[in-house]
Amino acid sequence: VRKVAIIGVGCTKVDDHWGKSLRNLFADAALKALEDAGVERVDALYVGNMSSGFLQGQEHLGAFMADAIGMPGIPAIKVEAACASGGVAVHEGFKAVVSGLADLVLVGGVEKMTDALTPHVSSAMIMAEDQEYTAYTGITFVGLNALIHRLYMETFKAQPEEIAMFPVVDHQHAVNNSFAQFHSAITVDRVLKSPFVADPLHILECSGIGDGAAAAILCPLEKAQEFTDTPIEVAASTVATDTLSLHERDNLLTFSASQKAANKAYEIAKIGQSDVDVLEVHDAFSILGPLSLEDLGFVRKGEGAKFTMEGQTAVGGKLPTNTFGGLKARGHPVGATGVYQIVELTWQLQGEAGKNQVNGAEIGMAQNIGGIGTTVAVHILRRVK
Amino acid sequence: VRKVAIIGVGCTKVDDHWGKSLRNLFADAALKALEDAGVERVDALYVGNMSSGFLQGQEHLGAFMADAIGMPGIPAIKVEAACASGGVAVHEGFKAVVSGLADLVLVGGVEKMTDALTPHVSSAMIMAEDQEYTAYTGITFVGLNALIHRLYMETFKAQPEEIAMFPVVDHQHAVNNSFAQFHSAITVDRVLKSPFVADPLHILECSGIGDGAAAAILCPLEKAQEFTDTPIEVAASTVATDTLSLHERDNLLTFSASQKAANKAYEIAKIGQSDVDVLEVHDAFSILGPLSLEDLGFVRKGEGAKFTMEGQTAVGGKLPTNTFGGLKARGHPVGATGVYQIVELTWQLQGEAGKNQVNGAEIGMAQNIGGIGTTVAVHILRRVK
Repeated sequence: VRKVAIIGVGCTKVDDHWGKSLRNLFADAALKALEDAGVERVDALYVGNMSSGFLQGQEHLGAFMADAIGMPGIPAIKVEAACASGGVAVHEGFKAVVSGLADLVLVGGVEKMTDALTPHVSSAMIMAEDQEYTAYTGITFVGLNALIHRLYMETFKAQPEEIAMFPVVDHQHAVNNSFAQFHSAITVDRVLKSPFVADPLHILECSGIGDGAAAAILCPLEKAQEFTDTPIEVAASTVATDTLSLHERDNLLTFSASQKAANKAYEIAKIGQSDVDVLEVHDAFSILGPLSLEDLGFVRKGEGAKFTMEGQTAVGGKLPTNTFGGLKARGHPVGATGVYQIVELTWQLQGEAGKNQVNGAEIGMAQNIGGIGTTVAVHILRRVK
Repeated sequence: VRKVAIIGVGCTKVDDHWGKSLRNLFADAALKALEDAGVERVDALYVGNMSSGFLQGQEHLGAFMADAIGMPGIPAIKVEAACASGGVAVHEGFKAVVSGLADLVLVGGVEKMTDALTPHVSSAMIMAEDQEYTAYTGITFVGLNALIHRLYMETFKAQPEEIAMFPVVDHQHAVNNSFAQFHSAITVDRVLKSPFVADPLHILECSGIGDGAAAAILCPLEKAQEFTDTPIEVAASTVATDTLSLHERDNLLTFSASQKAANKAYEIAKIGQSDVDVLEVHDAFSILGPLSLEDLGFVRKGEGAKFTMEGQTAVGGKLPTNTFGGLKARGHPVGATGVYQIVELTWQLQGEAGKNQVNGAEIGMAQNIGGIGTTVAVHILRRVK
């Protein structure tokens, strides 16, 4: 099987980009990645995006973005898997290189969520769930996560403080990330005194609404050294799914798609949890942090919140997680998020993570969730020695 | 390079399916394809769809459809490229098999266009074009095709009768296709006396609005005989793009994406135009029939309409085209269309095309367009001897 490497990455700041359209955002990130790789043209393009049709009246983002970056003509395809659209775009790009049908592939994600009415953004997000079985009740995406949050607290006797710690660590990391949406440190006390969005979820436990784009250039590992001195191998790229609706599941506190995608990734990369030096998890809501640490097998079920409370996910802890701020603080421009994770892990493994550098990081892992654990993309990246 | 085969196909009738949701339609087609292949489970699923977010409030169709067909858990991904979404889904499934990361792959397309207000469908369709540069003017997708139609007539001195012949042949073929949306034969006279939708395009020159789904099962060619006595090889699968906006192009009467995708496909399959026994072209509007015959290299530029008028595209002619009715008469449920083409070619090459069977057909070719020639997916299928 042909091996794949990342040879360049780039992203925009996650922000309210009032002056930039979907096109501008994507082009900014893509051109940075191309420049980083020293590449002027690619063989194929994959774009991850969830809601541009509904929010901007623009579909057909593959060809649209190929044109935007000056490459009309190349095979260019949009993929969508709700909030996992970015991770899935990386997965399709990975597969294109493995297949031998393309050498240089640009994978990117973009989402523009401001410049739309808040109710429209809520309507867009709940489309990740089942419209006929669940969304029609009027429940929001935040509301569904709040149910998981409450069940977790009751089942595992977890304290609100323990779960609130996850966003606190995120914000602590984001202070040093100039691309992050939020740069302010917060405290557990401040999280728990912030208004409820959907009880028991406080607003400071929810990722915000923001615009952003991220991109990476992939190529066969054997050719990577032609482009960069610090290629990063994509040691595994997996996708798994689960039912959309929660009522169809046996267990609401274990995301089987996370487990499936992760276990397959460990097997392909031939590593175990203890080999992972730096982690990115999809904490769109605080509860998804601890839950993901458990589903990926880093701690036992029910112990994720305690592990976070002990400071183990902070840089300097046992398992530095979301070292650029995660979804809560770096931001969560939906279709771009999975690609931001890849960009940030690449920087960590290249030793380019600045003040939040995890010393000697060799292996990084990213988990990107679409829906309520419905689609999960997992990537394992490895520094090439 | 690993070779790929089709081992089963299925589709629904294109129709106003008032009693069937997006989910039901897809499941119907997918289960038929699984049954045709004698397969109970696949390794991965690709779903082509354009507008379910905007029209049904449902995104995340990969996982959604995996669940619908009883396979939650498998990697399942939605791809979108406007009206070429179906062809592009087949392309991604093809790549998954070539990469060796999957053996059995289900590729399908679905679109539900009724049960939505007509202005909404028009709004959905124009999202294939550039919202900021073109769609904001208020022009419709039909309107843009009418401009091409008029320019073709003026440039090549083509007669309305010659262009109107394309839908006439489509309808003639669809009479024998029980899955077709329209079963009535029409005449050139009737086409030209039907109302204008956008001058010079008459309503009988435009594909209608309909619901439908189609699916195919792919596997490595070397394993295909385990499943069927009549596997069909996917000899080439290519995608190319062009600018979205027409004002960015040098030539409005040549779709360079069609040429690029087709030329690459001929090269990969090691065939020339004269080897093609049966053809499917993307005639969403009558003018796209002749134009595509030219872009794919079957006739010289400007001669497509005359070639049609001579009856060469009818079953029995030199180049039987759209033998199940094409977009005009079989129907054009947008994201499914590219997969319908694959299903129909498979039937032709298996000798299962009934009254419209092209005797001895060995090689089939499908061209699926998204936007105004913006994304083109080309497939070349070959009967396995």
